[in-house]
Amino acid sequence: MKILEERIRKDGVIKAGNVLKVDNFLNHQMDVELFRQMGMEWKRLFEGCPINKILTIEASGIGIACIAAEQFGVPVVFAKKSQSINLDGEMYTTRIESFTHKKTYDVIVSKKFLGADDHVLIIDDFLANGCAINGLIELIDEAGAVLEGVGIAIEKGFQHGGQKIRDKGIRLESLAIVDSMDDLTGEIKFRQKS
Amino acid sequence: MKILEERIRKDGVIKAGNVLKVDNFLNHQMDVELFRQMGMEWKRLFEGCPINKILTIEASGIGIACIAAEQFGVPVVFAKKSQSINLDGEMYTTRIESFTHKKTYDVIVSKKFLGADDHVLIIDDFLANGCAINGLIELIDEAGAVLEGVGIAIEKGFQHGGQKIRDKGIRLESLAIVDSMDDLTGEIKFRQKS
Repeated sequence: MKILEERIRKDGVIKAGNVLKVDNFLNHQMDVELFRQMGMEWKRLFEGCPINKILTIEASGIGIACIAAEQFGVPVVFAKKSQSINLDGEMYTTRIESFTHKKTYDVIVSKKFLGADDHVLIIDDFLANGCAINGLIELIDEAGAVLEGVGIAIEKGFQHGGQKIRDKGIRLESLAIVDSMDDLTGEIKFRQKS
Repeated sequence: MKILEERIRKDGVIKAGNVLKVDNFLNHQMDVELFRQMGMEWKRLFEGCPINKILTIEASGIGIACIAAEQFGVPVVFAKKSQSINLDGEMYTTRIESFTHKKTYDVIVSKKFLGADDHVLIIDDFLANGCAINGLIELIDEAGAVLEGVGIAIEKGFQHGGQKIRDKGIRLESLAIVDSMDDLTGEIKFRQKS
């Protein structure tokens, strides 16, 4: 998506260790007009899919998911990060390893809000190793819901998360895929859509 | 706001200990069409205020804030809950005591995204004791920004947070104020707008 790639070039900051900071418009300060255009693009890409719910994970996915949900006319459910698993059986739970924060946390979704009748689109801001997205896919499987696809704002194409998801036959639509970036020169290369 | 009060009566669950669960539409599953109507109402209420930024706090405030921000045509900044204060001077920080979760956490906003030129509207889903909102007000003061007002979805009027904020001369617009609720009868009373 041209407008997102241009925004990353303009406002993104590449740091050592393959860190791409986009806190100016995506995950600390949030440009809701950009989010609306991203939502419209996912709506176009997933046209015809019987999506009735968007699933995301707190915190930075929530804003993008909500504004995308307006385009789809469906509710959002966000998975909550929890210190301790709720054992009363009312929750779907999984465990996610965060590469960025070097820690593991439990993630929960209430059984009330995800079930066998749901056709779910996952939305999140970033995809690198895919740990968070795979956790959400596990929750959808646990619920017996149908995964219609995954929409990501920025995929780090040089890490393996995206490829692994595509290899499972899951439809993944990343609006910008970074194939390489260099914190010394500031150069960033995006994957061309085939 | 009639539509929000009706939704609370229909889908809210009153639990012992003055707990009001609205996770069906507000803070776990999120009804974005309701959020849009809430955003329009805040836009109407704060008409004429020179608001150029909305500030909220992760996680459940983010969705409401983003959809409200579309009505105002401004970006959102969300304060992040942090385990440890970043000491490099790039962040405004404050400490918030959570009544609900019985713990204290640090909250941060990057200095890049809040400054003396900003006229800020705070948006959040709930107001009870006001600890979170007071923390956000401290961050705004620290930044030298102007607080234009506070927009809350549901205020628990029988707790003291709202009154204390109004007593400071801050404009607070809560779309539904619960004056009392009874977990045994299920009865809930909303404050009538004067």
